[in-house]
Amino acid sequence: MEATLAQLCEAIASFGLKPQLDGDPDCVIRRAATLEDAEAGDVSFLSNPKYEKMLQTTAASAVVLKPDVEAPEKLNCIRVDDPYAAITILIVKLHGYRQHRRVPPSSAAVIHETAQIGENAAIHPGATIDANVKIGAEAVIYPGCYVGPRCCLGNNVLLFPNVVLYDDTVLGDRVTIHANTVIGEDGLGYAPHEGRWVKIPQVGHVEIEDDVEIGANCAIDRATLGKTVIGHGTKFSNLIAIGHGTQIGPHCLFVAQAGLAGSVNVGEHVTMAGQVGVVGHIRIGNNATIGAKAGVTSNIPDGETVLGQPAIPIGEMRRQVVYTQRLPELTRKVKELEAELKALRKAIDDSAFRAS
Amino acid sequence: MEATLAQLCEAIASFGLKPQLDGDPDCVIRRAATLEDAEAGDVSFLSNPKYEKMLQTTAASAVVLKPDVEAPEKLNCIRVDDPYAAITILIVKLHGYRQHRRVPPSSAAVIHETAQIGENAAIHPGATIDANVKIGAEAVIYPGCYVGPRCCLGNNVLLFPNVVLYDDTVLGDRVTIHANTVIGEDGLGYAPHEGRWVKIPQVGHVEIEDDVEIGANCAIDRATLGKTVIGHGTKFSNLIAIGHGTQIGPHCLFVAQAGLAGSVNVGEHVTMAGQVGVVGHIRIGNNATIGAKAGVTSNIPDGETVLGQPAIPIGEMRRQVVYTQRLPELTRKVKELEAELKALRKAIDDSAFRAS
Amino acid sequence: MEATLAQLCEAIASFGLKPQLDGDPDCVIRRAATLEDAEAGDVSFLSNPKYEKMLQTTAASAVVLKPDVEAPEKLNCIRVDDPYAAITILIVKLHGYRQHRRVPPSSAAVIHETAQIGENAAIHPGATIDANVKIGAEAVIYPGCYVGPRCCLGNNVLLFPNVVLYDDTVLGDRVTIHANTVIGEDGLGYAPHEGRWVKIPQVGHVEIEDDVEIGANCAIDRATLGKTVIGHGTKFSNLIAIGHGTQIGPHCLFVAQAGLAGSVNVGEHVTMAGQVGVVGHIRIGNNATIGAKAGVTSNIPDGETVLGQPAIPIGEMRRQVVYTQRLPELTRKVKELEAELKALRKAIDDSAFRAS
Repeated sequence: MEATLAQLCEAIASFGLKPQLDGDPDCVIRRAATLEDAEAGDVSFLSNPKYEKMLQTTAASAVVLKPDVEAPEKLNCIRVDDPYAAITILIVKLHGYRQHRRVPPSSAAVIHETAQIGENAAIHPGATIDANVKIGAEAVIYPGCYVGPRCCLGNNVLLFPNVVLYDDTVLGDRVTIHANTVIGEDGLGYAPHEGRWVKIPQVGHVEIEDDVEIGANCAIDRATLGKTVIGHGTKFSNLIAIGHGTQIGPHCLFVAQAGLAGSVNVGEHVTMAGQVGVVGHIRIGNNATIGAKAGVTSNIPDGETVLGQPAIPIGEMRRQVVYTQRLPELTRKVKELEAELKALRKAIDDSAFRAS
Repeated sequence: MEATLAQLCEAIASFGLKPQLDGDPDCVIRRAATLEDAEAGDVSFLSNPKYEKMLQTTAASAVVLKPDVEAPEKLNCIRVDDPYAAITILIVKLHGYRQHRRVPPSSAAVIHETAQIGENAAIHPGATIDANVKIGAEAVIYPGCYVGPRCCLGNNVLLFPNVVLYDDTVLGDRVTIHANTVIGEDGLGYAPHEGRWVKIPQVGHVEIEDDVEIGANCAIDRATLGKTVIGHGTKFSNLIAIGHGTQIGPHCLFVAQAGLAGSVNVGEHVTMAGQVGVVGHIRIGNNATIGAKAGVTSNIPDGETVLGQPAIPIGEMRRQVVYTQRLPELTRKVKELEAELKALRKAIDDSAFRAS
Repeated sequence: MEATLAQLCEAIASFGLKPQLDGDPDCVIRRAATLEDAEAGDVSFLSNPKYEKMLQTTAASAVVLKPDVEAPEKLNCIRVDDPYAAITILIVKLHGYRQHRRVPPSSAAVIHETAQIGENAAIHPGATIDANVKIGAEAVIYPGCYVGPRCCLGNNVLLFPNVVLYDDTVLGDRVTIHANTVIGEDGLGYAPHEGRWVKIPQVGHVEIEDDVEIGANCAIDRATLGKTVIGHGTKFSNLIAIGHGTQIGPHCLFVAQAGLAGSVNVGEHVTMAGQVGVVGHIRIGNNATIGAKAGVTSNIPDGETVLGQPAIPIGEMRRQVVYTQRLPELTRKVKELEAELKALRKAIDDSAFRAS
């Protein structure tokens, strides 16, 4: 949907930001694009200062950027304190969210006779809805999805193709799960018995609260007993593994390939960067940030940022990295000291000898 | 299935453990639950001492715990040396294992005319069974599974939804594979030729022996030549990658996101913790334990426990971590030594001057 | 297809290699096999010197190996400078590539009326082709695949079962994607707003160029704006995560479980070993090699090989590992220096006292 710069500024302002337009309010914008890809008729943005020089070469008709950044005169500028928030608003206005094809309740989808399907829900051909499932209104279930016995899905749930929900999984309203993710599989629960692993029935389940979005190819174990929980508003990237009984608070952000063992308790607004690993039975405090590839082996207090394997506060970790990089130098210095001390000892012995 | 505490103790005793009941043998138990979630009518357990204080607040009617742990008087206690083994027995008794819906041979499943399906096997609608496949008795193949040409599956094999078996995969009896796992895809086999990668046909296959359980979203490469093997009784968690031609012994336990390159030889009873990486063409000895996130780059002897990147024996690694954390202190000390040595040198020079 | 050793040498020679046959040119070979598994009638090879002793015990009828390697007299030897390239040629000749069962355009595949399917393409039952898709000639789409609206697939594309292509994905000619991989899912694009994460519509897409092969269970994010690109001839193993807007050059090789954040720019002929992680918004130069488990946090120049977390040039990293392993020794030495210095100080003080 195209809009003039004046209209775009209005949209930004309606969210409480205060955009300042340097340029032509009647200029018509059709698309959002990166500085690199933009063409005439596009709006772009500068959030990361790294890309500032691209302002000189971009073909965009307008750019969203901070008040103090210099830009070529010919460029229409929407200046705002938070360009990232503002471009988000513009992308929504210009492009909207993905629309999903609606299908009538289909004979090619396999829906168990005991399942209850909400109003206007679209169950695509090739999906399977098992016994005693409840699905809320306006849900979209793509081909190849499997919704196991007794699962309960809220309104406006969106399952991309080939998502698998094991028995008794609970999804809140507006939960989105990307393709090929698995929710509620059995965790690694075995008791050793005479050199063999005896399977412990995994009788718990998974609950995913409202407004959660889970990426592609993730795997979230059901609890052995009780439940695994993903708190409302939390967002996952791809290929994330969550162990049985782990409970994650609201509004967290997990980057790809993070892995948490079982019975971890994660607070709210926690960030886990890529490839993080967390051992079982610990607590990650509210607003904690776990740096990329960190291996967390003990409780993390609220608000802490950690890094490294084992993970320690990021300042300490960075210092440790610097000291480690200086190890060759330190080793050389110790050798010199040894030599000097030896020389000194000799000098003294000689002088003592002379003195005697 | 509910049972009295007397009956539960009997069940535990029948496995050779010696439970001691402190409490009411006629108390009726309906469920197993965690200390936190338990309600009246539930049996819980204490295995990890970390959770001992929850004994004071749990609403469970009974708890399985070690002989020497103190518990509130009102709590029925089943005391036993191995509470984890005992609660496993009780979960099996009270809840049993997941039951799978049986379906008649279905017209909605695509079964090639040359496939042989064993007695009472359930091939769900939406599954595909390709040419010359053999499937044993009582197998359950969920929707969306694809069983490629010439695969051979034993009795009681269980494939959760969307499992893909490439051509010629062999599964023993009672093999369970969780949703969206892929077995037998081509490995990364290419020969460089004039700046391009030329694909080497991957003509081997994968064999998975009896009683193996594989988690969700794993990928196990077929061998280039010969076979990739997962030994009997071995258990995998989720998102595990196994390279072509790797052979893993019996009764191993692999935690989520572990990755092994090709042509690795793993012994029996080996434990790989989460996010472990192992380079190709090495041997991991029997009963070895690879700690979380370790990067294994050389042979590991039988019984060794390693940690770190590159992985070294765990005692050395822990020492190394401690020494590294003390690096700032060591560096400061070396500076002090330098200063002191300089002062001393000056003192001697002065004194030598005075002496002369 | 069986062949004589003379014919096999001819095949090798036709690729520009110069094989030398020590043995019977009329010996008939039926299969390629590893030294360990080979039987009479098989050809094997020795490329990794580690396995040299197996020449003594192999039952192979012939072996491909380097000119200077000693082999038992009875063994027919094809001697060539690059045995790996030669055996690749022989595997292709003896076994060929996997043949895919062709199916007629099937009523059991769900193909949208607006989709255009190329000549002789095989869309298997259980696949879904959505609106306005174009699929080239001779493509093979296995069961359970989902090809989203407006995707455009070249000729001879091969999608193994359960591959999911989100809307607007572009695949070049001869692209192969292994089972359960997802292309074009939304990346982790959210703007923070009053403690919640607001989804940014991901309006970009993914382009995969000619001759790319992607392993199983990978996830490649669409770009927020613009496109994510995988360059021609690049090969991926399994469980790899690529962030939104990342662009990868031609002829790269990525090992399993590697993960790249968004907006990374990767050159050509880059190798990423297993479990590598790369932060966003950096450049990896042409012909760079990233060692296993490395965590790359800054630009890597052309041709560099790096290792470690954070990744540094491999020589430095190895030195650092050695120095770190010697830390206990260094610490001990510093303690000795301290003691010795203290003794020296005392000796001087005593001697000064005596001298005064």
